Amino acid sequence: MVDCIFCKIIRAEVPCAKLFEDDSVLGFLDINPINPGHTLVVPKTHYSTLFEISQKDLFACLTASQKIAVAVLKATKSSGINLVQNNYREAGQLIEHVHFHLIPRFAGDKFLKSWSGQPCPQPQLRKVLEEIKAELASSES
Amino acid sequence: MVDCIFCKIIRAEVPCAKLFEDDSVLGFLDINPINPGHTLVVPKTHYSTLFEISQKDLFACLTASQKIAVAVLKATKSSGINLVQNNYREAGQLIEHVHFHLIPRFAGDKFLKSWSGQPCPQPQLRKVLEEIKAELASSES
Repeated sequence: MVDCIFCKIIRAEVPCAKLFEDDSVLGFLDINPINPGHTLVVPKTHYSTLFEISQKDLFACLTASQKIAVAVLKATKSSGINLVQNNYREAGQLIEHVHFHLIPRFAGDKFLKSWSGQPCPQPQLRKVLEEIKAELASSES
Repeated sequence: MVDCIFCKIIRAEVPCAKLFEDDSVLGFLDINPINPGHTLVVPKTHYSTLFEISQKDLFACLTASQKIAVAVLKATKSSGINLVQNNYREAGQLIEHVHFHLIPRFAGDKFLKSWSGQPCPQPQLRKVLEEIKAELASSES
């Protein structure tokens, strides 16, 4: 896509700190890292989100992410890694080209420390369960 | 694995709010949701983290996640979805059986709102780039 910054990086019109490249995937350092070693993995084909990416490119991104994650963990001597993929602006997606964040973690950092999960009453859980199951069933019909 | 809560759920020894099942993957609602519709996708085979999961099961989890994410988005009428996968306790992993969170997002919720990425000086970016590239190269040799 002409005006997409990740497509420009893929076409080498904009430089990047490249870590990995194959026919379908590019991996490079985020220039605004949450922690040192924060990496982005993107398909070379433009898709906006997880909802549109082809299964082939999804697989290519994830196998590359797995391989890069091991290297990031070792190289940065971090104590953990978050794989994060945001869909739509409300979920924190700033670039509308699907991308997977690999975020190395270090003792004392604040990222994801305020995980806000709370026990959910069964009736509420059952209601949303049935609503999602209905959507899954309609996608198969 | 005998004492793993997700393995117990997979063996149906512990109940769950099941959304999806095939030969290799189970999808169910998180009982401590960040938002209504928060779903977990797990491989039926026990692996601790992204670093160990087989490529076949990784692909199965992600294709299931993609399908479920579309249904969660529609059913919950959320305005976005985060795919999050945490590796090691320091990264927020509480259950040592690899799992993918699908977290629907709603206007005004706080999850990931304090994304703390900051511009990184080039020398620092170059240093970590070379360190990760060296690990990637050594994993290929």
